[in-house]
Amino acid sequence: MKEQFQAYIHQLQDTICKKLEAIDGKAVFQEDLWDRPEGGGGRTRVIENGNVFEKGGVNISAVHGKLPEVMQQNFGVSHSDFFACGLSLVLHPINPFAPTVHANWRYFEMYDDSGNIVTQWFGGGQDLTPYYLFDADAIHFHQVCKDACDRHNDGFYKTFKKRCDAYFYNAHRNEGRGIGGLFFDYLKETETLTMQDRFDFVAEIGDSFLDSYVPILERRKNQEYSEENKNWQEIRRGRYVEFNLVHDKGTLFGLKTNGRIESILMSLPPKVQWHYNHVPDEGSEEERLVKVLQNPKEWLK
Amino acid sequence: MKEQFQAYIHQLQDTICKKLEAIDGKAVFQEDLWDRPEGGGGRTRVIENGNVFEKGGVNISAVHGKLPEVMQQNFGVSHSDFFACGLSLVLHPINPFAPTVHANWRYFEMYDDSGNIVTQWFGGGQDLTPYYLFDADAIHFHQVCKDACDRHNDGFYKTFKKRCDAYFYNAHRNEGRGIGGLFFDYLKETETLTMQDRFDFVAEIGDSFLDSYVPILERRKNQEYSEENKNWQEIRRGRYVEFNLVHDKGTLFGLKTNGRIESILMSLPPKVQWHYNHVPDEGSEEERLVKVLQNPKEWLK
Repeated sequence: MKEQFQAYIHQLQDTICKKLEAIDGKAVFQEDLWDRPEGGGGRTRVIENGNVFEKGGVNISAVHGKLPEVMQQNFGVSHSDFFACGLSLVLHPINPFAPTVHANWRYFEMYDDSGNIVTQWFGGGQDLTPYYLFDADAIHFHQVCKDACDRHNDGFYKTFKKRCDAYFYNAHRNEGRGIGGLFFDYLKETETLTMQDRFDFVAEIGDSFLDSYVPILERRKNQEYSEENKNWQEIRRGRYVEFNLVHDKGTLFGLKTNGRIESILMSLPPKVQWHYNHVPDEGSEEERLVKVLQNPKEWLK
Repeated sequence: MKEQFQAYIHQLQDTICKKLEAIDGKAVFQEDLWDRPEGGGGRTRVIENGNVFEKGGVNISAVHGKLPEVMQQNFGVSHSDFFACGLSLVLHPINPFAPTVHANWRYFEMYDDSGNIVTQWFGGGQDLTPYYLFDADAIHFHQVCKDACDRHNDGFYKTFKKRCDAYFYNAHRNEGRGIGGLFFDYLKETETLTMQDRFDFVAEIGDSFLDSYVPILERRKNQEYSEENKNWQEIRRGRYVEFNLVHDKGTLFGLKTNGRIESILMSLPPKVQWHYNHVPDEGSEEERLVKVLQNPKEWLK
């Protein structure tokens, strides 16, 4: 399974990067290969200052070694030998009408002292963070997520959509980071599902990513915008930073396991503003977004 | 002691704000009074878009109630009833040659079930975060800190300077947030020191703040700078955000005790940049700063 999933994320990274470069038409991904002193490494690919993308990264990594105790507690496991691999991507387009997108698909194994697998699971998902709300974009994104889920189980979309809203939540602001998508974790073997079934599901979701995001990007990337729109985007990106540095377990995992800092923090937006007590005008598009973030919506009938 | 220290920080907030407004010459502090639902409140004062200050806050607060268990563990206490008050300030000047400064002086009381004080302590300090290193500025700041310490105890400066370097440290980057200053905590009653002695010391440090910072600001506020200097400042401010959101116990305390978010996060810089894997040019002033941050220096002979 380890080899199968690693092969999958390798080709997925290539597929996604190729498509994104074609859309951008100017910037190309810069690749950095890195080793982790304690075991493993990764292939980081970052795109910056393009026609479409202000900053983005599509990274894969596969690391192994001993899990710090704090992370064992987080995972609810009592063993320390682990293997983890996954693909993480974050894209920050220039145009404030084009949403930021994040996706991550990952696989874990924990071993006993003899090196036997004691538990293994998949996790991941994808979620959208718009700065201006276009209902059609939100519905499209969620529809692609739902269609991919439905090909495996009728209940998956509802469950994983709810978990996404709960996970990508800035508790200290009482608002969601974005308008959600899918979030799943600890997808283990069950009475009715093999690890291969789990793999097939995660690969289905991974394969659906470009369909979920690219049409939205194509629609918004050339939309005219003002300096005020750009300022609002940069202010909202501050919330993105707050979530990633205060709440995100993936970032925490990276920082606590001596991951490669620049690969972990490539998720941070290129330009960010923090104003004191910024409140959008009543009745504005900016206010409408915030209200929806405070009350996660069901986008699909 | 509670009343004495609250009165002190009230007048100190006035003194500091008045002086900073005079230096800025354009922007004035906007005041927000706020209540904490669980008990207490504060007086937040923020200055933005001035001649000298891009953003800054000088806040006092006094809160009380029940301490969440996670914070009890942090403090090593087994009681939950607490009172805390303090003054926190962060100033982000426009000019990239003028350093950001942070200071905080605070007082805690913990109570038993009958409302008797079981333990009480002072904490605080002040530290400097330059974007370009001027040795004379660093020496001046540390000299004022040392002189204030020396009036109370010959060993204080050395101890609290070391603690400052250790505390304001971005462990995930292996570098200090800035060039330090003073950091002290859990200043309790001892065989030789009363709480009044502790108060006198903290007030001495608080009173020295303007002397430590204002002469540096006066020297740098009108120094000519380039767009590159400004970009570097904004990139380094990213490290400031990382420290405050990932490592800072004061921010954590505020977020975990339902503090007023906008008052806590007023510390965040107004404009910030994150570039992927930004490395300063060899032999540059920017590189010299980073090297010093990686190896905290003794500024005084």
